[in-house]
Amino acid sequence: MSKTMLTQDHELRERAAKVIPGGMYGHQNAAALPNGFPQFFTRAEGCRLWDGDGNEYIDYVCGFGPNLLGYRHPEVERAASEQAARGDCMTGPAPCMVELAERFVDMVEHASWTLFCKNGTDATTWCVTIARAHTGKRKLLRARGAYHGSAPWCTPRPDGVLSEDREHQIIFEYNDVASLEAAVDAAGEDLAAILVSPLRQDAFRDLELPEPVFARRARELCNRTSAVLILDEVRTGLRLAHGCSWETLGVRPDLSAWGKAIANGHPLSAVAGSEPLRDAARRVYGTGSFWFAAVPMAASLATLEIARRDTTVGHVRKLGEKLRKGIAAQATSHGLAVRQTGPSQMPMILFDDDPERARGNFWTSEAVKRGVYLHPWHNMFLCAAHSEADIVRTLEVTEEAFAALSKSGL
Amino acid sequence: MSKTMLTQDHELRERAAKVIPGGMYGHQNAAALPNGFPQFFTRAEGCRLWDGDGNEYIDYVCGFGPNLLGYRHPEVERAASEQAARGDCMTGPAPCMVELAERFVDMVEHASWTLFCKNGTDATTWCVTIARAHTGKRKLLRARGAYHGSAPWCTPRPDGVLSEDREHQIIFEYNDVASLEAAVDAAGEDLAAILVSPLRQDAFRDLELPEPVFARRARELCNRTSAVLILDEVRTGLRLAHGCSWETLGVRPDLSAWGKAIANGHPLSAVAGSEPLRDAARRVYGTGSFWFAAVPMAASLATLEIARRDTTVGHVRKLGEKLRKGIAAQATSHGLAVRQTGPSQMPMILFDDDPERARGNFWTSEAVKRGVYLHPWHNMFLCAAHSEADIVRTLEVTEEAFAALSKSGL
Repeated sequence: MSKTMLTQDHELRERAAKVIPGGMYGHQNAAALPNGFPQFFTRAEGCRLWDGDGNEYIDYVCGFGPNLLGYRHPEVERAASEQAARGDCMTGPAPCMVELAERFVDMVEHASWTLFCKNGTDATTWCVTIARAHTGKRKLLRARGAYHGSAPWCTPRPDGVLSEDREHQIIFEYNDVASLEAAVDAAGEDLAAILVSPLRQDAFRDLELPEPVFARRARELCNRTSAVLILDEVRTGLRLAHGCSWETLGVRPDLSAWGKAIANGHPLSAVAGSEPLRDAARRVYGTGSFWFAAVPMAASLATLEIARRDTTVGHVRKLGEKLRKGIAAQATSHGLAVRQTGPSQMPMILFDDDPERARGNFWTSEAVKRGVYLHPWHNMFLCAAHSEADIVRTLEVTEEAFAALSKSGL
Repeated sequence: MSKTMLTQDHELRERAAKVIPGGMYGHQNAAALPNGFPQFFTRAEGCRLWDGDGNEYIDYVCGFGPNLLGYRHPEVERAASEQAARGDCMTGPAPCMVELAERFVDMVEHASWTLFCKNGTDATTWCVTIARAHTGKRKLLRARGAYHGSAPWCTPRPDGVLSEDREHQIIFEYNDVASLEAAVDAAGEDLAAILVSPLRQDAFRDLELPEPVFARRARELCNRTSAVLILDEVRTGLRLAHGCSWETLGVRPDLSAWGKAIANGHPLSAVAGSEPLRDAARRVYGTGSFWFAAVPMAASLATLEIARRDTTVGHVRKLGEKLRKGIAAQATSHGLAVRQTGPSQMPMILFDDDPERARGNFWTSEAVKRGVYLHPWHNMFLCAAHSEADIVRTLEVTEEAFAALSKSGL
C-alpha cells in the first residue's frame, strides 16, 4: 500500500464544492463511490490514470467507455492533431465528415446513411424523433431501468421532469418476450419504436446478454407493426463487435445510436440508419454548435481503422476473459461468491448477499488503494491498451483485496 | 473574380448525398444557401477559411459563433495541446474543471456555481429542468421564433415532435411587455421559468436589442411569482459582454446558458446559476460521455483569460462598427435600402422589399465569389482576428457586390 493520501484530491473537492452543485455531478461524481476513490485525474496514458496526488492506477473504467484503444493513442492523436492544424469547428464541415459517414455505412450493416452529433443522448433522442417522424406514431417502448441518456425523456432521476416528458412511453422487461409483446399490444396502432440496448447493462445489477429469441422477437414485432427498431449501441459500440452487435444474432435494427468509443475519447456520437428511414432523418432538424467539428471526425476515422486492423474486439475480449478467470479462481479460493456478468470486455463484478454493497465497496476500495481502479456497481470497460502484464498485476492486487475482504469479516 | 469553380466541393456533395440524409443537416447545411456557397472547408486560420477548391474567404460567420478569438488561436491551441498531452476524456475530470468553474463564477455576476456540458441545447435544457425542479412548477415562457436548441421541446421544425414535448410552454412576443405579462397571467400559479435570449436574434428578420423596460419587467415578474429567469447566452456569450450581457441593463437572471465561443471552438457549454438554484441543480441529473473532458476546459480557461486581457468585446464591437458604417455608405451611394441590425459584433444585413431574399442572396453570393463569406439570412459574427485591413478588403468586395446588384436590376 504505497499509495499517498488524497490530499490534493481533497483540496480540489473542497474548492469544487463551492462552485459546482454537490461538488460534482453525473456519472463521474465520485461522491457515489467508496472512500479512497479519487475524484480528479491529472494524467492518462494507455490503460493508466494518475490522480492529483501522483497515485497511478490501472484503469478498468476507461472513461466509462470512450477509451477503447488506450488513452492518448499515438495514431489517433496524430490524426486529431493533423486535422486540428487545418481546422476544427468551422463555418462548414471538413471533407473528413463525408469519409467518416462512408466508413460508418461500410461498418454498420443495416446502415445506408449516418448523422453525427456530440452526446450519446443526442443520438438516442434523434433516433426516437426520426422514428416518430417516419411512422407518424407516438408510442416508444423501452426496457425498465435501461439508461439511454440524461435528457428529461430518459434521465434516471425524476427531479425537474414532467409527466409529459415521459408520455407515450411503455416499459417492458429486458429479455422478457411476453412483456415485450404485451407492451406492443398496449401501444395498439400507435407504436413508433422499440428502443433497446444490445444487452441489459443497468447499474447495480448483473448484466444480461440478449436472448436471441428476445432480439428476434423485437425485430418481428417491428416488422409486423411497421415500427422502428432502435438499437442503443452508445456504450457497446466497437467493444462488442466491429459493427452492429445484434447482427451476430441475425437481427438488424432500423436505427442505431453510437457514441463513447467511436472516436477513442474525442467527442462524437452518431446515428446510423437504414434506407427506409432516410427521408424522415432528412426532415427531422438536428444540429449543434460543435456537431460538424472536424477533429473528432478525423479521430474517429483513425479509431475505426485501427480497431479493424488490430481486431480490437477480439483482443479486448480475450484479455477480459483472462481477468474473469483469474478473479473467479481467487474468489473461489477465498470462499467468496462473486458474480461476473456481461461480456468480458464490459464486466460487472458483484458479490452475493451484498445488498448494501459493503463487500463490493470494500473489495474495490482495496484494489484502488493498490493502484487498480475498479468500479463497485457500474459495468467496467477493458481497452486495447491493457496488456497481459497489466492483467497479471491486476490479479495480484485483486488477490490481496480478496484476502483483505476475507479478513474483514464483511 | 479569381475564384475557381467548386469542383471538389461538388464532388464531396455528391458523395455526401449518398451517406448523409439530404446531403447535410442542421445549421451548416449549405443547401439552404444560394449557389456558389461552398459546403465544405479544408482549412481555417484567424478570420479566414479555405474551401476544398483552394478558394480563400474572409469569414463573417465564424462557425456560427464559436470562433471568437480567431480560428486556431495559438494561445488557446497551446493550452489545449498541453492538456491533451496529459489527458482529456478520463474516468474523472481534471483539476482544470474546478479552476474553470471558479473563473465562470468570477466572470458571471449572478453566478455562484457552474455546470459544464457539450451542446448549447444541453445547457438550455438543463436550465429549464433545474427551474422546474426548483419551483416544482411546470409552465415555461419563451419568445415566439426564438431558437434555444434542437431538442424536441425547442426544435424549430415539427417533424417527429409530439404535442406533449411542447406541453406547458407559453409563447410571448420578444420586447413586448404586455405580451409577457399576459403569458405570466396565463401561467397562473404554475409558472416555472421565463426563458429569454439577450436579444431577438431570429433568422430571416431584423435583430432587436432588448428594451430595458422589457428586460426589467421579466425580472420583476419572476420576482413576483418566484419563477426563474433564464438567459440564453449561448450565441451571445463573450461577444456582447465579458460576463452576463443583461447586467448592463441592471437585470440579473437566475440561470444562464453558455456555449459556442466559451472555448473558442472547442466543444463546451455551461450553465451558470445563482445561489438559490444550487440545490435544484444538485438534484437534477445531467451528464454526458464527454462532459468532463479536460481539453475543452483548458481551452476555455485560455479563452476567458485572453478575452479579458485583450478586451475582445470592445475590439470586436469597433471592427463591427467600421464594417457597418462602410456598408451603410455603400448601400446609400447605390440607392439600395439595407437594414443592418443587432450588435455590430453579430450583424444581420437584410435588404428592404426583398421577401424572396433575391437581393440578399445575390449580394452575398457576389461577396462569396470574391472571397468574403457573408450570410444572407442568419446573423453573422465578427471575431478578434478580423483586422482593420480585413474590413477594408471586405468593403472593397461589398462595394463590387453592391455594384453588381445595382446592375442586375433585382
